[in-house]
Amino acid sequence: MIRYMTAGESHGKCLTAVAEGLPAGLKISEDYINRDLSRRQYSFGRGERLQYIEKDQAKILSGVRWGETIGSPVSLSIENKDWENWGKIMSLSEEDKADKFCLTRPRPGHADLTGVLKFNRHDTRDILERASARETAARTAVGSLCRRLLEEMDIKIYSFVTEIGKIKAKTKGLSHEEAFDLAEKSQLRCPDKHAEGQMIKAIQEAKANGDTLGGVYTVVVTGCPVGLGSHTHWDLKLDGLLAQAILSVQANKGVTIGRGFDVARAKGSEVHDEIFYESGRGFFRKTNNAGGIEGGMTNGEDIVIHAAVKPLASLRRPLKSVNIKTKAEMTAEIVRSDVCPVASAAIVGEAVTATVIANSFKQKFGGDSVKEMRDNFLRYIDYLKKY
Amino acid sequence: MIRYMTAGESHGKCLTAVAEGLPAGLKISEDYINRDLSRRQYSFGRGERLQYIEKDQAKILSGVRWGETIGSPVSLSIENKDWENWGKIMSLSEEDKADKFCLTRPRPGHADLTGVLKFNRHDTRDILERASARETAARTAVGSLCRRLLEEMDIKIYSFVTEIGKIKAKTKGLSHEEAFDLAEKSQLRCPDKHAEGQMIKAIQEAKANGDTLGGVYTVVVTGCPVGLGSHTHWDLKLDGLLAQAILSVQANKGVTIGRGFDVARAKGSEVHDEIFYESGRGFFRKTNNAGGIEGGMTNGEDIVIHAAVKPLASLRRPLKSVNIKTKAEMTAEIVRSDVCPVASAAIVGEAVTATVIANSFKQKFGGDSVKEMRDNFLRYIDYLKKY
Amino acid sequence: MIRYMTAGESHGKCLTAVAEGLPAGLKISEDYINRDLSRRQYSFGRGERLQYIEKDQAKILSGVRWGETIGSPVSLSIENKDWENWGKIMSLSEEDKADKFCLTRPRPGHADLTGVLKFNRHDTRDILERASARETAARTAVGSLCRRLLEEMDIKIYSFVTEIGKIKAKTKGLSHEEAFDLAEKSQLRCPDKHAEGQMIKAIQEAKANGDTLGGVYTVVVTGCPVGLGSHTHWDLKLDGLLAQAILSVQANKGVTIGRGFDVARAKGSEVHDEIFYESGRGFFRKTNNAGGIEGGMTNGEDIVIHAAVKPLASLRRPLKSVNIKTKAEMTAEIVRSDVCPVASAAIVGEAVTATVIANSFKQKFGGDSVKEMRDNFLRYIDYLKKY
Amino acid sequence: MIRYMTAGESHGKCLTAVAEGLPAGLKISEDYINRDLSRRQYSFGRGERLQYIEKDQAKILSGVRWGETIGSPVSLSIENKDWENWGKIMSLSEEDKADKFCLTRPRPGHADLTGVLKFNRHDTRDILERASARETAARTAVGSLCRRLLEEMDIKIYSFVTEIGKIKAKTKGLSHEEAFDLAEKSQLRCPDKHAEGQMIKAIQEAKANGDTLGGVYTVVVTGCPVGLGSHTHWDLKLDGLLAQAILSVQANKGVTIGRGFDVARAKGSEVHDEIFYESGRGFFRKTNNAGGIEGGMTNGEDIVIHAAVKPLASLRRPLKSVNIKTKAEMTAEIVRSDVCPVASAAIVGEAVTATVIANSFKQKFGGDSVKEMRDNFLRYIDYLKKY
Repeated sequence: MIRYMTAGESHGKCLTAVAEGLPAGLKISEDYINRDLSRRQYSFGRGERLQYIEKDQAKILSGVRWGETIGSPVSLSIENKDWENWGKIMSLSEEDKADKFCLTRPRPGHADLTGVLKFNRHDTRDILERASARETAARTAVGSLCRRLLEEMDIKIYSFVTEIGKIKAKTKGLSHEEAFDLAEKSQLRCPDKHAEGQMIKAIQEAKANGDTLGGVYTVVVTGCPVGLGSHTHWDLKLDGLLAQAILSVQANKGVTIGRGFDVARAKGSEVHDEIFYESGRGFFRKTNNAGGIEGGMTNGEDIVIHAAVKPLASLRRPLKSVNIKTKAEMTAEIVRSDVCPVASAAIVGEAVTATVIANSFKQKFGGDSVKEMRDNFLRYIDYLKKY
Repeated sequence: MIRYMTAGESHGKCLTAVAEGLPAGLKISEDYINRDLSRRQYSFGRGERLQYIEKDQAKILSGVRWGETIGSPVSLSIENKDWENWGKIMSLSEEDKADKFCLTRPRPGHADLTGVLKFNRHDTRDILERASARETAARTAVGSLCRRLLEEMDIKIYSFVTEIGKIKAKTKGLSHEEAFDLAEKSQLRCPDKHAEGQMIKAIQEAKANGDTLGGVYTVVVTGCPVGLGSHTHWDLKLDGLLAQAILSVQANKGVTIGRGFDVARAKGSEVHDEIFYESGRGFFRKTNNAGGIEGGMTNGEDIVIHAAVKPLASLRRPLKSVNIKTKAEMTAEIVRSDVCPVASAAIVGEAVTATVIANSFKQKFGGDSVKEMRDNFLRYIDYLKKY
Repeated sequence: MIRYMTAGESHGKCLTAVAEGLPAGLKISEDYINRDLSRRQYSFGRGERLQYIEKDQAKILSGVRWGETIGSPVSLSIENKDWENWGKIMSLSEEDKADKFCLTRPRPGHADLTGVLKFNRHDTRDILERASARETAARTAVGSLCRRLLEEMDIKIYSFVTEIGKIKAKTKGLSHEEAFDLAEKSQLRCPDKHAEGQMIKAIQEAKANGDTLGGVYTVVVTGCPVGLGSHTHWDLKLDGLLAQAILSVQANKGVTIGRGFDVARAKGSEVHDEIFYESGRGFFRKTNNAGGIEGGMTNGEDIVIHAAVKPLASLRRPLKSVNIKTKAEMTAEIVRSDVCPVASAAIVGEAVTATVIANSFKQKFGGDSVKEMRDNFLRYIDYLKKY
Repeated sequence: MIRYMTAGESHGKCLTAVAEGLPAGLKISEDYINRDLSRRQYSFGRGERLQYIEKDQAKILSGVRWGETIGSPVSLSIENKDWENWGKIMSLSEEDKADKFCLTRPRPGHADLTGVLKFNRHDTRDILERASARETAARTAVGSLCRRLLEEMDIKIYSFVTEIGKIKAKTKGLSHEEAFDLAEKSQLRCPDKHAEGQMIKAIQEAKANGDTLGGVYTVVVTGCPVGLGSHTHWDLKLDGLLAQAILSVQANKGVTIGRGFDVARAKGSEVHDEIFYESGRGFFRKTNNAGGIEGGMTNGEDIVIHAAVKPLASLRRPLKSVNIKTKAEMTAEIVRSDVCPVASAAIVGEAVTATVIANSFKQKFGGDSVKEMRDNFLRYIDYLKKY
């Protein structure tokens, strides 16, 4: 099993992650992880704080030696570059407690109100610091480790943005790789240059109005062998696990596999992917409406996930709220934030997908070293061809 | 923790479920569970076999005594009423093995092909028997136990169908309770009488063509207190757990919370649910775009889940496939099945939602007896009012 | 992962187990499992009820077809042959509730008192039915499935009894296999004929006095490759997992690996197993003080576990207790039971050990079919030889 | 659920722990944790390195603000004070790889050999760095958090050492509290002054001979309410969970609850703790042979655990081994280490016991704040009195 935990508050000292179960002998560097952190961090529509003050950098604190994993848990730390300005507000010490720092006007759409009630707190900062999407930097770093492992198995994970606000990108005719290549060059991860221009305008307009925008992104996994996940028990079904991963990401409110809701409106004869066979190649499909998953298992085609991201709930022109102490009606706290996080959400979507795929891969193939895991995998591929 | 496992093949002796973690002192009967099994089983568009041969009946084998749970695991069995006709095909004994019983033409859209490759089998029946949606009868029974528990906490779970094929029901203006009441009287769980008529026609037409239809259903949970789930760790987020539960159900390909994909196209100022307060009532909202979940936690409003069900992959007019033994191209196996399972899927959706909510409820309130759990809950409700 | 749940009360309809994660293609029969159930059931010192009324027989309800596992969960049922006499007392129906059936005098040493307090019950039968060691029949059946899998990997699990009451068997000079062979022929699983005679006498004497006896047994696992379990995280350490399995068995109060408490009194220079190497054979040891586990991992030598079983708490000459309703002091309930269960406990010890080893095996080697798992395993063995 | 993961190598940058599930509002400081780290670190018989170079200090990196937990995961870091001397040997960078740093002579009794084989490594340092008992500093820190929580519930955890090598302490007549108080003043955690003197001599002698010593320690938990753990399912039984925790600690080879192996040699009539009742006090016992656990649950008496620690496997006068590269016979690596770690092991025993008890406590009482948890607990205590 590959599993992980994360910790850390948005303006605390650092984010921490511990990932356990990676095989030994996996080449990995901080630079590799930081590439993904950077991809997550920089996009049009993100706040200035995030882009200028905090260039995220992961430090590997354990589990890697001389360029390779050694089998022990990998711990990662992403420091808060702005910590010096937060030392009192986020201090460990009771002495630094001060009413003036307390936030009492919960923002609709956030964990603020629900959190203070659940945990019996009286300062929404106790909640929002952890609920913040900044936590996804830690998951992105863990996702990087998993992505690195999957690369060794020739499995790749892509993402691109297809909608922002009411603007839809045209991606028809593009292969997943092409869409991804275009996305990597776009400041919004949008593979359609024309749509990107409109999206930027929409974001600028939203920003001018103190408003925010959401959107839709796609994650694609290529190279998965037939048979990750399982049809045999509800909690082994890969589509369920992927859906959990995606909807556990802040602001994600919908997830589909393959054609998604659209498939609900089609006929059975139109949507199932017929089966073909070629000697040497084995079984294959000419269509992929299923999005790579049948019966809770990968079927060898690309996994295709779509996710809906709501517009952020931190509005510069705040909504109505209530002071949690006085119960007086007032507008919500204004907290520095982004206008449109969809491009970043897509990278987080890649990351959490990587964790699920890597774990299901390890469950199928076992292996305590990359070599053992890969040997087991290759023999299975060989078996598939001869089946 | 409330957890459960299921076992059993579609045409095997029986389905089995073991559920662990229910508090003692919960009144429960087989009749109560059978009511849900019946709701799952009977709807327009389901196959004749399912509706006439197999009236599902759960037997409680342990964990309940003199009308009440006693704290030990509850085991449930749902017998295959048609077992006498399947004894050879599904026999335990190697002696009954016979080529004539083997299925070798995998159905696109099913686990058939993927499963035989993953598990190294050469008869797709070894896969399809477990991958079949019949397994959801066991989950429905477990869901009933959880629903019964939630009733004691005044939490209720509803469902209704909003789309079948290209037909959409009109539900505007209906409260969740009203939509549910209408759905309970509809043979398609559709609260819109007019749409229901069109849906029936569409199903009849699909049936005539050997085709199938999918659709969209809604699950609603009322009465949840603020604070089930948690914002603090990715695998505690309630939206993630609900999404896993829903997409782990056969044929479900998409899931959203609240306004779902639609929310991705709106502005932040339009979609977040402003916060109000009234003495005696506490905090509340006038809108529910979030679908009852903010920051991975219930916010006290109704939980609203939408799910997309693909048209079934068992077509009477079969798709192209390949014989797994000879590798010759041929049409897929024809297996007796339904035309449109959306109404049943909605009941399963209720059930798996119940398991997630019951588990999160127990994690928050603990308790080894219903009384202890409910006392802990009521005191929390009291605290919320005074917060 | 291989995991399992059990359910069922001692005098309920049946015990149920669901085991998930066994690879497909494992040959298994009810007879195979019943052999272990019988080994658990019949020994000198067990009560008449157990030996004469209830010849345990497992039924496989799912997961096996035509003599082989098919990858889906295996469910097992062990019926209560005496159910007809218990239908009212253990009835599902509230109508059968009757004061006359209620037990109110908790037995010291049992779950009775603790259980009724925890679960808020007022009849100790609600507790003792599940707490009873009869539940271990279900674990024994699951252990059989795991043992069958391990056989395919040339891993074997033995047990024998070394102490009953104050009598100790002499096993010095016997190999584990020899001790096991002698134990299989003994009605007390004792490899020392002379000691067995004394043990029988001690049991007869205890029985005559309305008393009970405990003892010590040994479980040995042979054939494990180097490297099951892991040193990398506390909850992967194999000694910890084995200890949990053993102390989760009713009446087991102590567990050691290798030389156990005795090792605490020796010097380091005396107890560590020096390392040798021979070409073709690889690394090996000439001693096995470690009991086959170093650093939480198998080291290739036999795993040796010792467990202490307390004398049963169901005494025919009962201890002091208190009526839970009236609070009056009185003697404890007398419940029909065994005098000395150590031989049976040893078989259960084998079973739970098998579940832990099978699970750790699957985690290392993966595999969805026995063939895939075994191929991965054999290549690892080959790699070890060439290391 | 309260759960945790640890990471970090003995001579790496730092140890890291992430603990999740602690309720909000728990007062905690680094000083509190450091007190336990210090108790673990300083005892007679520990190596100079450990005692002089590395005064362990935990830093809380998240989850605590203004002196209290806030509900989010608590991350802890314990830096390696000697890191500057290890930067090359434990470097992240492939460039620092150098044969001269590689260790190739595995130490019998350690994970060294098993680990390099399992993980396909060729330098035993890749294994021993993680397998080292230094990792228990991280578990001790997590245990401190749990201990702090349990204090709020009036539950306390003690330990003392009863044997070192062949010397046994006399503790007869001492209450657990008295034994603990004496232990806290002893440099070997031994409550018997006379025995302590002999133990020190034995350790000095072992040290002079390049040898090591093990021993036996006791952990006691006072104040647990009736009903932690559960009789209902094997993996909820508290004795199993405690045994796992203890045997997952490096060098621990045996664990017992209550009278342990001794109980196996007694009669049933001698060992079960009779039940008494007093109005106002409720049910109680006059003896505690069971060690506080019956039926896998706490019975309200002190939990008493004994654990056997083997003599350390790092000998200054090394045992026979084999060079893993050349396969030549030679003596094992000499790694700086302790002579007798039993006093430290006892503190780690306290810590891992605290994690198990805290988790079972949370499972029974739920609660997201200390206040909610404690209120639920107190009401249960009240219910017990009225039962």
